Amino acid sequence: MVAELTRLGQTLTMVKRIHWLVAEDSPACSPVIASLLHRLGLPFTHLATPMPEVYRRERYVPRGVSNRRAALQWVKEEGHDHGVLFFLDDDNAIDVRLFEEMRHTKTVSMWPVGLIGDYTVSSPIVRDGKVVGFYDGWPAGRKFQVDMAGFSVGVGYIKKQKRPTMPYIAGYEEDGFLKSLNLTLKDIEVRANGCTEVLVWHTRTAKNPTRAIRLPPDKHTHDNIRGLVENMKHLGMIK
Amino acid sequence: MVAELTRLGQTLTMVKRIHWLVAEDSPACSPVIASLLHRLGLPFTHLATPMPEVYRRERYVPRGVSNRRAALQWVKEEGHDHGVLFFLDDDNAIDVRLFEEMRHTKTVSMWPVGLIGDYTVSSPIVRDGKVVGFYDGWPAGRKFQVDMAGFSVGVGYIKKQKRPTMPYIAGYEEDGFLKSLNLTLKDIEVRANGCTEVLVWHTRTAKNPTRAIRLPPDKHTHDNIRGLVENMKHLGMIK
Repeated sequence: MVAELTRLGQTLTMVKRIHWLVAEDSPACSPVIASLLHRLGLPFTHLATPMPEVYRRERYVPRGVSNRRAALQWVKEEGHDHGVLFFLDDDNAIDVRLFEEMRHTKTVSMWPVGLIGDYTVSSPIVRDGKVVGFYDGWPAGRKFQVDMAGFSVGVGYIKKQKRPTMPYIAGYEEDGFLKSLNLTLKDIEVRANGCTEVLVWHTRTAKNPTRAIRLPPDKHTHDNIRGLVENMKHLGMIK
Repeated sequence: MVAELTRLGQTLTMVKRIHWLVAEDSPACSPVIASLLHRLGLPFTHLATPMPEVYRRERYVPRGVSNRRAALQWVKEEGHDHGVLFFLDDDNAIDVRLFEEMRHTKTVSMWPVGLIGDYTVSSPIVRDGKVVGFYDGWPAGRKFQVDMAGFSVGVGYIKKQKRPTMPYIAGYEEDGFLKSLNLTLKDIEVRANGCTEVLVWHTRTAKNPTRAIRLPPDKHTHDNIRGLVENMKHLGMIK
């Protein structure tokens, strides 16, 4: 996670007029992420947004909903009407030109997302400048078959809605959120050259389980390895 | 690949006084990578360095040797004596502070590499400010058990050697290269706070095979999807 946040945060420092909301799935803001945010030097807000206990006990609960709901609440209270909300994931790879594509979003902007993993691409189908459907979406049966990295929303537009929210239903987070905005297909703003260019990729790689390093008590007592292992524990790289 | 090169190249634009050698494993420089390099705006040299046919027929041939040998040749001919060579991989995640750590390398600098995948970390063992061995290296039996992302070399130091080269032996590329520099452990410059900090990660994820998208001839004839698929083929995202 620290590798991905470092890489992502460094990319965000290249974007003008950005505010990074980092909503952690933990009961308190972790010092490691706080120090990374301070070091990067871009405007940020750091939120501790743990998933409620009631959901942790269930099997197919989507990760990230609690965090995105908190970000949504923050945006409703603190965001400028001409601001734009984009939900980043730590496993996104972004061409910085995407931020210019989304910058003037009034309602909801959409664009293709390269999916690295089982799928190849998720994209709106555009005809005569308007979205008429979705290509290669999963799961089917959704009105808005889009990836979380495939859209941005105008903050003013969010504020105008009665109950903007995201459901705790795996696979239906994007669809449920966009439905809560009372969005229709014809409201969607088409970006990335008529949805023909890929400027963001979503790697769907499974996370490796966090490993432990246990040093034998008689080993590495006079070198750097114990200090290195301590730093890696601090960064959450190992248990 | 285009996702990773975009992400990596954007990071490199943040580094002062850098020259990016991009050595492709292909018979000619691909226009997609050329246009990415031009767009990023950092100083670069783009080389076409295909693996020789004789190696392609073998089973356990290391990828990347032909490219790194070409880069080495370029550095010997064109590099400044006070320059520093660092072998990047497209699956590295780098904290930009690493470039400041390596910037003053005279012989060979080393630091820990976080390994995302089967391993956790590869690091020199440092005692009293000197490298005395290596932690968690693979394969064993090497003099220098380091990851390709774990060291940098002074260009002037390379030029002083008779036959700096990299062997075509999987798992022994780093070791063979450092041996060809006549390096001894006591020559190594210790970086990253005595090799206790992780500023670079190497994800050892297997590449997914490139997929094909075949659109039925009667589908998507009046929308954006054919243009999107063409662009993705152009970028090498699909076959």
